[in-house]
Amino acid sequence: MVRRQSAADCDLGVARAFIGGRWKSAILCELYAGPVRFGELRRRVRGVSEKVLFEQLRELEAAGVVGRAVFDEVPPKEEYSLTPTGLTLAQAAHPLVEWGLRHAAQVSAEPH
Amino acid sequence: MVRRQSAADCDLGVARAFIGGRWKSAILCELYAGPVRFGELRRRVRGVSEKVLFEQLRELEAAGVVGRAVFDEVPPKEEYSLTPTGLTLAQAAHPLVEWGLRHAAQVSAEPH
Repeated sequence: MVRRQSAADCDLGVARAFIGGRWKSAILCELYAGPVRFGELRRRVRGVSEKVLFEQLRELEAAGVVGRAVFDEVPPKEEYSLTPTGLTLAQAAHPLVEWGLRHAAQVSAEPH
Repeated sequence: MVRRQSAADCDLGVARAFIGGRWKSAILCELYAGPVRFGELRRRVRGVSEKVLFEQLRELEAAGVVGRAVFDEVPPKEEYSLTPTGLTLAQAAHPLVEWGLRHAAQVSAEPH
């Protein structure tokens, strides 16, 4: 892997807006496995409140990373899924997931 | 890219400890281009205070991601570099950097 020549082109800022926070990265992980309804997503993303989940989903949707389908049922149901951009984000984040699985024991033994 | 079967194996938590914060990800980016002395690192990582940079480097060092060489000069100089584990982390994060470069305009137009 060729090392970069300078830091100028090494900015994680844009992606960090999505994977830097606990809830957004958990939501992206869940949707990476396929579309999920709000209630099920709430169950899977342990510890998130309904309000926070709703807000995070709206932000991800506004950023074009997550899409929402509304089902005309009683009560109406909403299903969330990754947009094509969201899918490329999840794929780009996947090496970090694998890195974490490989190095969890080694790096988490230390305070950080 | 094959989608995961479940979210259980999709945890960014370990890596997020390193790339989730503004300073650590900037430090890793700088060191990805090669070893850097403390003073130069302080100049490059814009906005970081000496105290914060020192703490972040010590945390990265304690986690085994960054190494430190001390040069017996007057005054003594310290040079920081990625350890082999640090290099694999930077490499795993690189697809997200590229994702950010490709999608910055599209996703940053929205609040998140």
